[in-house]
Amino acid sequence: MVTDFAKRNCQVSPSGTLEVLSQREIAVLIAASQDTSQSSLFELFRRCALAVMNTGNETDDAAAMFAKYHDFTIELAQRTRGLKLVIKNAPASAFVEGRMIEGIRQHLFSVLRDIVYIGTESLWDNGGSLDGEGITDAVFHILNHARVLDPNRRPNIVVCWGGHSISRPEYEYTKEVGYHLGLRGLDICTGCGPGAMKGPMKGAAIGHAKQRATSARYLGLTEPGIIAAEPPNPMVSDLVILPDIEKRLEAFVRLGHAIIVFPGGVGTAEEVLYLLGVLLHPKNADIYLPVVFSGPQSAAPYFEQLDKLITLVFGESARERYRIITDDPAGVARYLNKSIRKLRSHRRESGDAFYYNWLLHMPEEHQHPFEVSHESVSKLRLTRDLSPADLAVNLRRVFSAIVTGNVKANGVAMIKEHGPFEISGDPEIIEAVDAMLMSFVEQGRMKLPGSDYEPCFRVVSKSAQ
Amino acid sequence: MVTDFAKRNCQVSPSGTLEVLSQREIAVLIAASQDTSQSSLFELFRRCALAVMNTGNETDDAAAMFAKYHDFTIELAQRTRGLKLVIKNAPASAFVEGRMIEGIRQHLFSVLRDIVYIGTESLWDNGGSLDGEGITDAVFHILNHARVLDPNRRPNIVVCWGGHSISRPEYEYTKEVGYHLGLRGLDICTGCGPGAMKGPMKGAAIGHAKQRATSARYLGLTEPGIIAAEPPNPMVSDLVILPDIEKRLEAFVRLGHAIIVFPGGVGTAEEVLYLLGVLLHPKNADIYLPVVFSGPQSAAPYFEQLDKLITLVFGESARERYRIITDDPAGVARYLNKSIRKLRSHRRESGDAFYYNWLLHMPEEHQHPFEVSHESVSKLRLTRDLSPADLAVNLRRVFSAIVTGNVKANGVAMIKEHGPFEISGDPEIIEAVDAMLMSFVEQGRMKLPGSDYEPCFRVVSKSAQ
Amino acid sequence: MVTDFAKRNCQVSPSGTLEVLSQREIAVLIAASQDTSQSSLFELFRRCALAVMNTGNETDDAAAMFAKYHDFTIELAQRTRGLKLVIKNAPASAFVEGRMIEGIRQHLFSVLRDIVYIGTESLWDNGGSLDGEGITDAVFHILNHARVLDPNRRPNIVVCWGGHSISRPEYEYTKEVGYHLGLRGLDICTGCGPGAMKGPMKGAAIGHAKQRATSARYLGLTEPGIIAAEPPNPMVSDLVILPDIEKRLEAFVRLGHAIIVFPGGVGTAEEVLYLLGVLLHPKNADIYLPVVFSGPQSAAPYFEQLDKLITLVFGESARERYRIITDDPAGVARYLNKSIRKLRSHRRESGDAFYYNWLLHMPEEHQHPFEVSHESVSKLRLTRDLSPADLAVNLRRVFSAIVTGNVKANGVAMIKEHGPFEISGDPEIIEAVDAMLMSFVEQGRMKLPGSDYEPCFRVVSKSAQ
Amino acid sequence: MVTDFAKRNCQVSPSGTLEVLSQREIAVLIAASQDTSQSSLFELFRRCALAVMNTGNETDDAAAMFAKYHDFTIELAQRTRGLKLVIKNAPASAFVEGRMIEGIRQHLFSVLRDIVYIGTESLWDNGGSLDGEGITDAVFHILNHARVLDPNRRPNIVVCWGGHSISRPEYEYTKEVGYHLGLRGLDICTGCGPGAMKGPMKGAAIGHAKQRATSARYLGLTEPGIIAAEPPNPMVSDLVILPDIEKRLEAFVRLGHAIIVFPGGVGTAEEVLYLLGVLLHPKNADIYLPVVFSGPQSAAPYFEQLDKLITLVFGESARERYRIITDDPAGVARYLNKSIRKLRSHRRESGDAFYYNWLLHMPEEHQHPFEVSHESVSKLRLTRDLSPADLAVNLRRVFSAIVTGNVKANGVAMIKEHGPFEISGDPEIIEAVDAMLMSFVEQGRMKLPGSDYEPCFRVVSKSAQ
Repeated sequence: MVTDFAKRNCQVSPSGTLEVLSQREIAVLIAASQDTSQSSLFELFRRCALAVMNTGNETDDAAAMFAKYHDFTIELAQRTRGLKLVIKNAPASAFVEGRMIEGIRQHLFSVLRDIVYIGTESLWDNGGSLDGEGITDAVFHILNHARVLDPNRRPNIVVCWGGHSISRPEYEYTKEVGYHLGLRGLDICTGCGPGAMKGPMKGAAIGHAKQRATSARYLGLTEPGIIAAEPPNPMVSDLVILPDIEKRLEAFVRLGHAIIVFPGGVGTAEEVLYLLGVLLHPKNADIYLPVVFSGPQSAAPYFEQLDKLITLVFGESARERYRIITDDPAGVARYLNKSIRKLRSHRRESGDAFYYNWLLHMPEEHQHPFEVSHESVSKLRLTRDLSPADLAVNLRRVFSAIVTGNVKANGVAMIKEHGPFEISGDPEIIEAVDAMLMSFVEQGRMKLPGSDYEPCFRVVSKSAQ
Repeated sequence: MVTDFAKRNCQVSPSGTLEVLSQREIAVLIAASQDTSQSSLFELFRRCALAVMNTGNETDDAAAMFAKYHDFTIELAQRTRGLKLVIKNAPASAFVEGRMIEGIRQHLFSVLRDIVYIGTESLWDNGGSLDGEGITDAVFHILNHARVLDPNRRPNIVVCWGGHSISRPEYEYTKEVGYHLGLRGLDICTGCGPGAMKGPMKGAAIGHAKQRATSARYLGLTEPGIIAAEPPNPMVSDLVILPDIEKRLEAFVRLGHAIIVFPGGVGTAEEVLYLLGVLLHPKNADIYLPVVFSGPQSAAPYFEQLDKLITLVFGESARERYRIITDDPAGVARYLNKSIRKLRSHRRESGDAFYYNWLLHMPEEHQHPFEVSHESVSKLRLTRDLSPADLAVNLRRVFSAIVTGNVKANGVAMIKEHGPFEISGDPEIIEAVDAMLMSFVEQGRMKLPGSDYEPCFRVVSKSAQ
Repeated sequence: MVTDFAKRNCQVSPSGTLEVLSQREIAVLIAASQDTSQSSLFELFRRCALAVMNTGNETDDAAAMFAKYHDFTIELAQRTRGLKLVIKNAPASAFVEGRMIEGIRQHLFSVLRDIVYIGTESLWDNGGSLDGEGITDAVFHILNHARVLDPNRRPNIVVCWGGHSISRPEYEYTKEVGYHLGLRGLDICTGCGPGAMKGPMKGAAIGHAKQRATSARYLGLTEPGIIAAEPPNPMVSDLVILPDIEKRLEAFVRLGHAIIVFPGGVGTAEEVLYLLGVLLHPKNADIYLPVVFSGPQSAAPYFEQLDKLITLVFGESARERYRIITDDPAGVARYLNKSIRKLRSHRRESGDAFYYNWLLHMPEEHQHPFEVSHESVSKLRLTRDLSPADLAVNLRRVFSAIVTGNVKANGVAMIKEHGPFEISGDPEIIEAVDAMLMSFVEQGRMKLPGSDYEPCFRVVSKSAQ
Repeated sequence: MVTDFAKRNCQVSPSGTLEVLSQREIAVLIAASQDTSQSSLFELFRRCALAVMNTGNETDDAAAMFAKYHDFTIELAQRTRGLKLVIKNAPASAFVEGRMIEGIRQHLFSVLRDIVYIGTESLWDNGGSLDGEGITDAVFHILNHARVLDPNRRPNIVVCWGGHSISRPEYEYTKEVGYHLGLRGLDICTGCGPGAMKGPMKGAAIGHAKQRATSARYLGLTEPGIIAAEPPNPMVSDLVILPDIEKRLEAFVRLGHAIIVFPGGVGTAEEVLYLLGVLLHPKNADIYLPVVFSGPQSAAPYFEQLDKLITLVFGESARERYRIITDDPAGVARYLNKSIRKLRSHRRESGDAFYYNWLLHMPEEHQHPFEVSHESVSKLRLTRDLSPADLAVNLRRVFSAIVTGNVKANGVAMIKEHGPFEISGDPEIIEAVDAMLMSFVEQGRMKLPGSDYEPCFRVVSKSAQ
């Protein structure tokens, strides 16, 4: 359809949080919008806004998108009675009969709210000055400001993680699981984007419709770095942009009442290690949070590898924290439905809120952004003398480095220049990691810069030397 | 999933119209429920109820379904405060966590309401004693009783017709059209069942979700004879069971604000001829009702054949009543959106209701059920001396006879016993009909009793002799 | 304010039940509207419509009102899409800024619905052909058609009876009771009009507002004969016009979950006797319905007289059916709130509906209209050999005759022409009735045709002769 | 009713803004609640909370109330999931059936929100460090935080000012005006408390009910210093406590779309002078804000005096800013209804918000609290060489001093100790003020410390010396 490649101009007004602003708040926003340097918040907003409006034209080639819409502009116009976005050369696919699709309009103002409005406050933690408790508080305020925390809803949020470029049968499987969750009145929370992030929402929408569940929610939590590659589907009813990966992960685990891990790649493994790093912390021994790993039969090897690494690193008892359910979408939904009822009584007994898991202890290392570099990676030790929780922190950082070294532009360049990252640790652990990565390559779960897999890291020392 | 073949027992209470009944109304329903003869209303209800609960287990083999659930029972239990359905051995797929899916529960009580409650009133027209005006009134009351007529909604109902066993690309096309209708806030009304009846609803649901259209409707109009073969998808938000095909067709054209014809077979052709028989009636010269024939490129031949027959029979001017749009889902939606705005001003000027097209003149021959038999068919003349409207009436009855003779059990038996139906008419018309049927066979659009197509009719005389 | 005496013209369209009508229903209404004979339904409607629109200009002199608005006209205009009322020379007080007050508009269409629309159906029981069960059913359908029966509300309807021209302190007392009922989330149902019918509603409105009870209801049940003298206050949220006094009384006792009797006159005494005639019927021994007689200290003698008559006639045990609470508005509300909770469990146990007391047995003599004449009154025996329930039936009819003979135009004329009614009965009972009436006169609770009280009846025989 | 003097204990949880708080916000509140010094925010909250719960027990003797409930305590209890108020020895009249009246519960949390939660922020302006623009912004945020600013409502807020201890006919008149405003769908905003602040709300409630206006609002703006003497009626749907008189006055004029001045005393005169000081400022020449002075015939002298003083001081042209309407409640409502339509187009043209009058220029002297003392008063010049706007500022401060010197405990003490305030100004102006005060005394509109009126000020100098 040729028209979809056309470009459109328009003016839109906000609804929601940004609808009523003081003259000063508007002035701050306008000032921010006039800083057009490449690194400014407003330029970040501009790029995210384009990604949000380009949804549906599926591609994870963000560069191509920015090239095509190089003349896209977005400006804040001050009106005494509020503000307006003046948009030029936007993707025509965001419009129907000359009006912006309502879901996209809402996302646009979610992005403005979270990046520019919140971004000018300390909550955004630009200087990295917040401590762990401060970060937990900031995540709370960002979610609350987005009106996501509703004290009058029963626990029913199922967080779904997994790859964004999974196989067709795996995608269909995530839809099927979503459908059975929807039939049980459970809401879906994902990281936005295609694949395992979209399937559960589409399936749940059918389930909710069949049950006439009119207030169902589809929560999308994202961050500026990935929104271009994984733009939110307009079905997402509540979009929140967290400042960075770590705050986004914290939002997932404090907001969710259950977590499903679908098949993915290294990124999904990173999320799993983050999660276990939290749940296996001794201070969280009394916290109840149901976790399921699930996929169709074809995904069984993926979870076997994960399971093997986990038990090797954390011991057999780590298995108490998750359950693997293969090829049984209704079974997954039944189990989580029951588990969430159990969670409800746990929360009641402990006095914790339904809408935010305050009592969960979060190791502070999990909260601060990890900057990947040869130096930072070389300091990560993967040794058995660490506590399982600390080991999980390091392991998840290693996976973060691998994702960077394998596919992110800056990471690939680093490896080219300085050679592979050097990781020190117990050989047994390193080998297990390596074996898992090899199996991911075999299963086609690794996006690689070249045609052959060449590890971007090497072992340099034994553990605890 | 093995559990789906299991059977379940349950008790359910009504919501909606049947929630508050007088003791006498309950007594009448109970009395009807105790007449268990094969031809009774309650037995009809039982069969339709099973079909509604068996939804999703897609098959158009009603006989197989009845065999499998031969021990399914449904009883009305009197409670002073209301009534209850006591159900045994129902398809387990209708339940989630031991509770009936809400959409199915609502359909179940729609069936009870329309077949047993309305069925015991004169509206059901069992004796065929209503005249044309009375039938129009009865259709109105049945729809109103089902709370489908809403004076506070703007015209936005798009009726979608087409085959229930179309090809995958055609099905995807209907979804795409539905999506673009949904993006424009248009509601969908179909005849229930799979194929072209389901696609537009599924597509529209996505469009509505993206536009946050929370009060969208998915209307399903069916009749007892086809509900088993074409059970309503639980997404249907408003299900109405009309007493017979003719009243169902009248409901479509009085309720709809636009009509799309997707590719189908002989049945779809019958609907088109019914529609033109109404719209081309001289008394309807001032009535505006937009009609679009649409499908993917592969369906172009289907509409060419239809168009050829129509213009041959009714003349070129008949084309003013419909537009053929090929392979352009967004274009269909754009055109209808504009047309419905035009219809709105037409209705305002003429003083007609938005929710029911009272001013449309309905030829009484279109309203009374046509009983197919060798004798009744032999009386149908297809000659050019008839007015186009009368010719349309006869032609639609011929197609009704062909559907019966080709695929319905009783029709196939008739042909076997008495030979083909005899149709008299102008050779040119008869030949055009024949040519169209041959092309349907070639396109795989005819469900046939045998492997080769053998016409179930023959020409016996020239026109107007 | 001079403008209030002006007259206005306007056109109004219905909302609610009459919003969507078939062409035939409209035709029936139009036909009814063209019968302008004095005794026609439409003339009855016209008079009631004027009363409804004249609300607030408080007077119980209906004749004066009809004289002033002698040129008031109301016509039904047919529109294809619905109907309209064309009104001329209506009281200007019904309008604000040229628009009819919404509450009055709703009442106007309630009157049209109940008198003209329902009036042309058998439910209206014009020919008196319904039997007891049929009448109960008709009352149900009239209430249901008015959308008053809501299966999703908890029992909370308190029926308030009492005089329409009570003293200021008594009026303030009814407001105070209403306030305390409103604070407890209880809804009010009265007979419309001023005095004890208006006070509880005004008080409850304040109580409801303080509790933020947004879905509170103010039900008004009236009948054509009294609507002119006691027009509904526009605060009445649900107005229903029952065909006659007896059906209105039945509506009260089947709809209400508690009954308060405030001070009144002979009419109130008649209602109390009706109520006891029902509750003391042996078949109602298991029915629970809380009844309170209440007023300020100054009203104590009124209730003493009532109590004396009741216990004399029915025995001490009749007192189990009611409680007298003097000068304690909060106490009344507390007692009823507790009692209604008890009623709820009674209904649950017996399986009776919350919204209509089906299980209450209604003596058929209570259901048929009693036509007052010398002959019909002479047949009423007040003797102790009758069952208490039968005695109550006769006694309430005697009070009906006294109201008629004392104040209604036709009754006063009867007495003038034929002398007092003759009543036969046990002297003790007759004397008690007489004593009560004398005390009413002393308390100023009797509206009398002349300045001295002259009984309109005399005793003619002993009981049981 | 004896029970009303009883005391009750209870625990209540918040709804609205305070329902979802972070752990840190709760900690700040808890800390504030532990500062129990007499001058602490929490002690202020405690006193206001008691006033709110004592509503209905009408008295403006705050001291007596605090004496009676000397053992009243209120504590904040921390719960992980939110917070709770633990209350002991509260007025029993705030409870029904053991539960706090919902309207009172909401007010209690409005007080907590505005005094303790907002009070710990800079918005409260405790240090007086905000400049004019900052104050305007703070008022906006306090109102917005209270969810009073709704961008989706049409302008319809009528601010009503006037005395809290007016005569019965004047009170009835304010009710009547409120009734006619309510019939026109206008909302009421007052300063809380009895008299002219309660009458319009009670009247409007009836008008709204008759028009079925379900989303009507009753806004109460108060400040800590007067809440005890003028507690909000529980009918107030939106209660906001502004930090001081000046911010409360600014809230009135930025929020209101029209202002009615009912009869009052010196306080009301002070408000009128404030208002004219704003409206007559040259920068506000293009601002449209309708103002009406109204009362029954008996109040005509009050407005004559006001009018005389105003025109003397500001010239005849000041009359363009207000209209005096005597004894015509419906006329007041008609005029304001029309005026607010005009205001709507003014706002549209100027681009100003409907919900907050940003473009109104506020002289900074009007915004900062004026501390009454002999010294501060002696600096106020009432001379004709000042601009009318500046003169209004000084004059309103003089009235503020008179209120203080006449009735406030600290003011009366000052006068006793140091003699009357000394005011310098043009004799003509001083005499006009004096004459007006004398007439107020004659009309019984002055609350005086002694039995004879003895002016608390004297003239010390001519103008412009």
